[in-house]
Amino acid sequence: MIRILVTGGTFDKTYDEIRGVLSFRETHLPQMLQLGRSRVDVSIQPLMMMDSLDMTDAHRARIVRGCAECAESRIVVTHGTDTMVDTAAAIAGASRQDAVLASKTVVLTGAMIPYAFGSSDGLFNLGSALSFAQVLPRGVYIAMNGQHFEWDKVRKNRDAGVFEPL
Amino acid sequence: MIRILVTGGTFDKTYDEIRGVLSFRETHLPQMLQLGRSRVDVSIQPLMMMDSLDMTDAHRARIVRGCAECAESRIVVTHGTDTMVDTAAAIAGASRQDAVLASKTVVLTGAMIPYAFGSSDGLFNLGSALSFAQVLPRGVYIAMNGQHFEWDKVRKNRDAGVFEPL
Amino acid sequence: MIRILVTGGTFDKTYDEIRGVLSFRETHLPQMLQLGRSRVDVSIQPLMMMDSLDMTDAHRARIVRGCAECAESRIVVTHGTDTMVDTAAAIAGASRQDAVLASKTVVLTGAMIPYAFGSSDGLFNLGSALSFAQVLPRGVYIAMNGQHFEWDKVRKNRDAGVFEPL
Amino acid sequence: MIRILVTGGTFDKTYDEIRGVLSFRETHLPQMLQLGRSRVDVSIQPLMMMDSLDMTDAHRARIVRGCAECAESRIVVTHGTDTMVDTAAAIAGASRQDAVLASKTVVLTGAMIPYAFGSSDGLFNLGSALSFAQVLPRGVYIAMNGQHFEWDKVRKNRDAGVFEPL
Repeated sequence: MIRILVTGGTFDKTYDEIRGVLSFRETHLPQMLQLGRSRVDVSIQPLMMMDSLDMTDAHRARIVRGCAECAESRIVVTHGTDTMVDTAAAIAGASRQDAVLASKTVVLTGAMIPYAFGSSDGLFNLGSALSFAQVLPRGVYIAMNGQHFEWDKVRKNRDAGVFEPL
Repeated sequence: MIRILVTGGTFDKTYDEIRGVLSFRETHLPQMLQLGRSRVDVSIQPLMMMDSLDMTDAHRARIVRGCAECAESRIVVTHGTDTMVDTAAAIAGASRQDAVLASKTVVLTGAMIPYAFGSSDGLFNLGSALSFAQVLPRGVYIAMNGQHFEWDKVRKNRDAGVFEPL
Repeated sequence: MIRILVTGGTFDKTYDEIRGVLSFRETHLPQMLQLGRSRVDVSIQPLMMMDSLDMTDAHRARIVRGCAECAESRIVVTHGTDTMVDTAAAIAGASRQDAVLASKTVVLTGAMIPYAFGSSDGLFNLGSALSFAQVLPRGVYIAMNGQHFEWDKVRKNRDAGVFEPL
Repeated sequence: MIRILVTGGTFDKTYDEIRGVLSFRETHLPQMLQLGRSRVDVSIQPLMMMDSLDMTDAHRARIVRGCAECAESRIVVTHGTDTMVDTAAAIAGASRQDAVLASKTVVLTGAMIPYAFGSSDGLFNLGSALSFAQVLPRGVYIAMNGQHFEWDKVRKNRDAGVFEPL
């Protein structure tokens, strides 16, 4: 079984038609899994719904705790792309002093285009992240653009909008 | 690098608006990879564009040859779901007498809903299959519904429209 | 108030993922009107769900009756494109002996691509037909491709997939 | 022939995936008309690409000029919904001193959801506005939610996100 920790990010941005701005409401994860006809046994846990640029250390501590405390040993974290690498580093850092957390496989993923748009990369990334989470050995990874990276061997190229190896 | 062998299937069915029927034209794989912002190094090779119910032994032999002869050792085959298991068995059978083929990782995938429809599972499955193909050891697999199965441990449940373990 | 008579056609074709074919289930009209944020006062009446190539005189008689008997004087008929002109002629023919029917504005419309596909012309045509139905004088019309035609001054060009003036 | 004056608004908002915000690039009008299989003879003229909340009197003067100076007597203006009524009033006001402008049919329309999202009301509204523009007599109108209103008999209900009669 896989735990999916939801933190928001572009993945879950939606268009507020009354105010004319992007905002967060409920997560789209259940309908994305339904659209993908997923039969992976998952447990979805929304932790927060926010832009990753607004995340503080306290938010990251909550994500780390979510990874450490859940019963599952395989975890997908949906996350804004801008600070995804920072959160991955925080989880990996905490793993050094937490043998249980260190034994888990944690895969962070996100999207460049909101799922609520017709043309999102979110469904592709979700299929990819769920698959990597099932087969990769213990460790903290980022799954974007169909690829996976160990947490300390990747950076987001903000000009190109892609993740690339360090 | 991953070789993608295209054989058609629901993945690539499109709506012929002049005749009002489902048909095949060109593969949607390139635009699906673009939509997914994929940065996986792939080589797309269309072998045939057909409904898998119409496949003969000759078609399957051609797919086996495509897997055996390509330079890549990691392969994704897009395929209709109805006889996907049969083709997987044909590839696995040929592997017994072909050491090179036996050393490869072959992942078959498909879709229940055409990609050209707005609500396809195809993008999810493609992200999943490409990911499994990068990390699974040698063997022939089916990647559907976010899961992966060894070729001889799966069947399509036609009533439910899902793949399930034997 | 506008009566919407639903007869099927490409408008309402959907993809049967278990059998892998196009089929009819329930009409998409309510969700199309919701998507369009329509505030037009309508009453939706499904008469049949069929390909217009399969329509017989009996089916057309039922559509004529639906137009004649409803309380509304402004009517939109959703219809397959292949025999839309024939049904329009049947309604116009019946109008000659039915003063009530002759006093009504009837607009037939349809789609070249099923609404269930992401890229349908259906929503455009529905917005167009509902608008023409509100302002055109009594008569029987076809609204397709953003245009409107009197029933006896139009034909479907099947090679091009468009409606054009006679 | 119909002139389409493009001014931006939610209709044409797009998602900037590098910066993660809504922005304007080129108008989607040509691809919307293509999606709708429109065969209406139109001439598309982008005047500005902006949020209607940012429009000044100078912008409105430019739209009035665009309506007055074009050769066509039937005009559709795509416009943000928040100040659509103000611009309609500006055009109607200028008509009092411009006999040519007063002889034209001008229909303003917009969208609550960006077309670039999969679930926009834009295509419905465009089909509606183009249709009203072909058949309504001289005057300045707003076409939203499948309805049409004379410019001085409508207001936007910002809480509900709909246009309603005064």
